[in-house]
Amino acid sequence: MSNKSHDRPDAGVSQGTLVIIGGHEAKGGERPILQEVARRVRGGKLVVATVASHKPEGYFESYQEGFKDLNVGELVELYVEERAQASLPETLKLLEGASGVFFSGGDQLRITSQIGDTPVESCIREILEKGGVIAGTSAGASAMCETMLVKGTSEESHHIGDLRMAPGLGLIRDVIIDQHFAERGRIGRLLGAVAQNPRVLGIGIDEDTAIVVEGEQLRVVGSGAVYVADASGVTSSNIAEARRDAPLSLHDVKLHLLSAGNGFDLRARRPLSARS
Amino acid sequence: MSNKSHDRPDAGVSQGTLVIIGGHEAKGGERPILQEVARRVRGGKLVVATVASHKPEGYFESYQEGFKDLNVGELVELYVEERAQASLPETLKLLEGASGVFFSGGDQLRITSQIGDTPVESCIREILEKGGVIAGTSAGASAMCETMLVKGTSEESHHIGDLRMAPGLGLIRDVIIDQHFAERGRIGRLLGAVAQNPRVLGIGIDEDTAIVVEGEQLRVVGSGAVYVADASGVTSSNIAEARRDAPLSLHDVKLHLLSAGNGFDLRARRPLSARS
Repeated sequence: MSNKSHDRPDAGVSQGTLVIIGGHEAKGGERPILQEVARRVRGGKLVVATVASHKPEGYFESYQEGFKDLNVGELVELYVEERAQASLPETLKLLEGASGVFFSGGDQLRITSQIGDTPVESCIREILEKGGVIAGTSAGASAMCETMLVKGTSEESHHIGDLRMAPGLGLIRDVIIDQHFAERGRIGRLLGAVAQNPRVLGIGIDEDTAIVVEGEQLRVVGSGAVYVADASGVTSSNIAEARRDAPLSLHDVKLHLLSAGNGFDLRARRPLSARS
Repeated sequence: MSNKSHDRPDAGVSQGTLVIIGGHEAKGGERPILQEVARRVRGGKLVVATVASHKPEGYFESYQEGFKDLNVGELVELYVEERAQASLPETLKLLEGASGVFFSGGDQLRITSQIGDTPVESCIREILEKGGVIAGTSAGASAMCETMLVKGTSEESHHIGDLRMAPGLGLIRDVIIDQHFAERGRIGRLLGAVAQNPRVLGIGIDEDTAIVVEGEQLRVVGSGAVYVADASGVTSSNIAEARRDAPLSLHDVKLHLLSAGNGFDLRARRPLSARS
């Protein structure tokens, strides 16, 4: 049952930084999460991608307010009403020279259906590969995974047929992210996700809380908690056996509850020592 | 980190059966939970203790309806308005010859403050020791523990100073019960409870779901899931170190998700093989 028997060479990100946020990050006062993003933009250009939203009015303005005085050089909005726009030169121009991209909330399927496999997506990947920062909150957090959670019941234990997943942006591998975690009672659906394939590590992020991923390690920032569900040691599950409407059973999950200052090694699947 | 290094001779119940219910158990149709209770009453007398409620009107009637046709011989209501009544002969008479007691929901502190250390409590313990059944739903479930959860935030990750506990009836040892579990997003507070002393096993029970405890083993009944949080292997926690308003961190919790048909050995702290 040791997790160390597997090597996970793809864990984490090879270059740059991901800031993955559980939604409702503070935009006034101390703003530790926006500070983490700004620190990595280093006075450069930050693109706020509001593409997850059907009606992005007000989103960009709230981040203009949120990043005020935080050493972000230029703040521009990227919105893609129709997928065709994601290939236009004027859209790509918005991303030129950017040090970071921030995905706001909405619907993760809008992000992937509008920009997946387009030049915009390539540009975003390039920014990360050049050492930039890609941040995402709520839907923008979920979309970072290779396979992303799209839908599932909250405030209910997981029933086997409940979950809907889809291919995400794949900026981080072997991980599945859920957001608004404690607030919407989502432990059930996170367990449902990792039960399907224990290769993916389940990470549930509370509101106003983020993980900052650099290399193979993540660190927690913000006021809430992060739940890491590691199913690699699971000894028994009914996920492939029972009826679709049966409640899930899953034995021997390892669960880590992390808070600000805590770190976690994605390759070794081990918490790093706490600082708080 | 092996759980087997400790012997837990007090785990479970020595005699009789506990049916511990997460609230809102079905009272019509198939009613698997009420059936479990009725099967152990075997045509005898069942006392519905509505003492957890400040206004018990309607509770007893709903169980009259719920236990209809389920082979319960006599159904009587036990209500204690004032603690003094818990010592009166006419109150004790209600419990005479009973095969089972069913605690309805309300406030767990009303149960313990009204009947704790009274002749009523002794009678109830005696019914269990003679091989009877004690059932409890919602507040009636929480009250069964030696140390019971009284209050804590739901739908929020646990902050260190949040939890309130109190001495319970102590019908089951080394266990802490939480109810309405997935429905009210209570994983955070269950982890907060087991962090305080990993000696107690945390058991979170969904609505319309119950654990049936006999000897050292429990079995799950009903439509939802049961979460068992075993903190005995925890390697790091900030519960005694950080500020009271800091979010909890807790590394290496073992979590088991159980559903109908699953069993669990409380002494070995291991799931039994699933039947579903």
